Amino acid sequence: IVGLAFKVCKFSQKAWDLGVEDPRKVIHCLKVGMALTVVSLFYYTRPLYEGVGGNAMWAILTVVVVFENTVGATLYKCLNRVFGTCLAGFLAIGVHWVASQSGERFEPVIVGVSVFLLASAATFSRFIPSVKARFDYGALIFILTFSLVSVSGYRVDRLFDLAHQRMSTIIIGTSLCIIVSMLVCPIWAGQELYTLITRNMDKLSDSLGACVSEYFQDGGCSLADGNDYDKECQKKLQGYKCVLSSKAAEESMANLARWEPPHGRFYFRHPWRQYIKIGASMRSCAYCIEALNGCINSENQAPEYIKKHISKNSLKVSTNSSSVIRELAMTIKTMKKSSNIHYLVGDLNSAVQELQTDLKSLPELFSPPSNMEAEIPENKKIEAASVTVVATMPLMEIIPLVTQASLLIEIAARISDIVEA
Amino acid sequence: IVGLAFKVCKFSQKAWDLGVEDPRKVIHCLKVGMALTVVSLFYYTRPLYEGVGGNAMWAILTVVVVFENTVGATLYKCLNRVFGTCLAGFLAIGVHWVASQSGERFEPVIVGVSVFLLASAATFSRFIPSVKARFDYGALIFILTFSLVSVSGYRVDRLFDLAHQRMSTIIIGTSLCIIVSMLVCPIWAGQELYTLITRNMDKLSDSLGACVSEYFQDGGCSLADGNDYDKECQKKLQGYKCVLSSKAAEESMANLARWEPPHGRFYFRHPWRQYIKIGASMRSCAYCIEALNGCINSENQAPEYIKKHISKNSLKVSTNSSSVIRELAMTIKTMKKSSNIHYLVGDLNSAVQELQTDLKSLPELFSPPSNMEAEIPENKKIEAASVTVVATMPLMEIIPLVTQASLLIEIAARISDIVEA
Repeated sequence: IVGLAFKVCKFSQKAWDLGVEDPRKVIHCLKVGMALTVVSLFYYTRPLYEGVGGNAMWAILTVVVVFENTVGATLYKCLNRVFGTCLAGFLAIGVHWVASQSGERFEPVIVGVSVFLLASAATFSRFIPSVKARFDYGALIFILTFSLVSVSGYRVDRLFDLAHQRMSTIIIGTSLCIIVSMLVCPIWAGQELYTLITRNMDKLSDSLGACVSEYFQDGGCSLADGNDYDKECQKKLQGYKCVLSSKAAEESMANLARWEPPHGRFYFRHPWRQYIKIGASMRSCAYCIEALNGCINSENQAPEYIKKHISKNSLKVSTNSSSVIRELAMTIKTMKKSSNIHYLVGDLNSAVQELQTDLKSLPELFSPPSNMEAEIPENKKIEAASVTVVATMPLMEIIPLVTQASLLIEIAARISDIVEA
Repeated sequence: IVGLAFKVCKFSQKAWDLGVEDPRKVIHCLKVGMALTVVSLFYYTRPLYEGVGGNAMWAILTVVVVFENTVGATLYKCLNRVFGTCLAGFLAIGVHWVASQSGERFEPVIVGVSVFLLASAATFSRFIPSVKARFDYGALIFILTFSLVSVSGYRVDRLFDLAHQRMSTIIIGTSLCIIVSMLVCPIWAGQELYTLITRNMDKLSDSLGACVSEYFQDGGCSLADGNDYDKECQKKLQGYKCVLSSKAAEESMANLARWEPPHGRFYFRHPWRQYIKIGASMRSCAYCIEALNGCINSENQAPEYIKKHISKNSLKVSTNSSSVIRELAMTIKTMKKSSNIHYLVGDLNSAVQELQTDLKSLPELFSPPSNMEAEIPENKKIEAASVTVVATMPLMEIIPLVTQASLLIEIAARISDIVEA
């Protein structure tokens, strides 16, 4: 029993933390409760109840199913639900009319076959990627309404009344949802996507800087002593992992953001697709950082004198690329073309050039050891050789980074163009 | 109009291709149609109709909402639906009883407040990750049923009858879904996950081999001439991208597979979590290949003589690691510990050792150019210097690969242990 109580305690602790971390989740829950309570008023107040009848149930059902965390998701579901219901309702009434003309004997057969065919077709359409992205829920509702209406048409006489009531209750439910989700502390999918992207960019630049400075150990973070500063440093270092794993979230949010009306600084037809492209190029940067990180943890470490030789310019390159990424994040944040982004890119390119010349002078460093071969012990020589392996990694890694950075710049420029237009 | 017709044509062509590519999707659609037609029989045959009454609608609704592509998903939704409904039904009846004891005036207030509170709490629970993974749908159904039952309790007198009918129709719907999805050409989430993982492993080993042989250009694939062989080669080279992007699919399938009963070669309590771990280590391999691939496309290319120096052993390492991965895929396929996996790993390790000694002798190759400095033109020397940069990449990349490979081996060994036990 103590174990159970402990588990319950831990669980509620976790839930509480979740609430404190993101209070908007709690607000969302209250919003759901509110919408449900409002919709159940239709049951309690007599005049409203007589207006819609026992079908008020459908309004409640609609609210529960349709209400989502973000405005985009709610709108997507509402619109899909309304259009799916309308289309299916008209089709079902048509099929019902045809069936009722063909005599009592064939009626169930015709209805049954039509349900089978249309349900199969609609289910198949849900597998087509372009349909799935936009109308997945609509297709589900289409199947649902069509089978309900056409099947109950066999027993219920006043089919039009049924369809009418169902439509009106669904419209009541959806409009209530839209109003509540848009007016009470709205959470916009577009806004979420935007903060996710800019936060990821910041994390990326932090972790690039941390990674390179860790490699050259100049006050970088070591795992050995565990004070607060080091922990924060480690956290920065791991920041790129968020970038790696945020693909699915980005795509679903970009999909939902398209359903949203213009809000805040996002105008109509905001280029949400561009955000996905930015996300993709950030991920390829993150792959490079992953490889760099592998270097840090590798067993072969370059000796100090080689490290020192290239450290200054490597650090320069990394800080420059960090600041380019940070500047790009600023560009997206302010949605204005940054004037000094081109200077920063120029700095970055010249830093890369310097690093390259440094690397080209490395073989000259090698010549002394190969001349002094007899003097230094054997294992020392081997170490010196394996140096190149490790020390030259940063350059190789930074070359794709540079390409990525220029790609990012292009995208950012395109975005700011579109936004300004 | 011609444009529209063309679009429709293209769309149906795409849909047809989708059906040909994976006929199981078509079968799934027919299954949905079948289940719906069967359930609508309840409406057409008089004795059955009188048994469940107008609530047969709920059975149809259940079938539409619950029927999913894989058995695991269907079972997950069915069980969640049944338990969510039961729990919510009992709670709602309890609340209704309390409310009815407290006089007519307070009844709507108590019911309303309880709906508000429980709906908010259940919505919040859907944000907790552990609940979300397993009971997301159940929580939704809980809110739905609770608000429906408790609200309609205010108007409907025979609440028990309503609850009873709702339960029985839902059970009819869910059991029908389970039977159809399990007996007619079942698609098991576990089986899907398993094929996904093994196929990804094959792709990974193919693309590792292709990547390294492309780098050393010994009959590798070039983009320049575009015959069929080269295209296939390019396809192999890009195979690792599938591995990078399959994270979300793996996780959702592992989640669903847990709900499935033992089937085929998968016994009860099959270690689905292990598949996710394998997926993760495959992804880190894929990151390495991504970096290697960046090398291939980079501008700095090593001159031929250096490449030749390490090409033999690099190729050996890559073919060895490819065969280790392929052997691991076989291990998973047959679910038996492979006896020669340890030999293969031994081969791989010795190949890595040889490559390392090759690299260690690289500086000796450098000494001649630094001695002949006056003779060779300046840019030639620079090229030779930038050589190390590129040529040494494979080793650095292969070191994490080796660690990954041994990690994979450990996981595979663990799996085969569990499977055999």
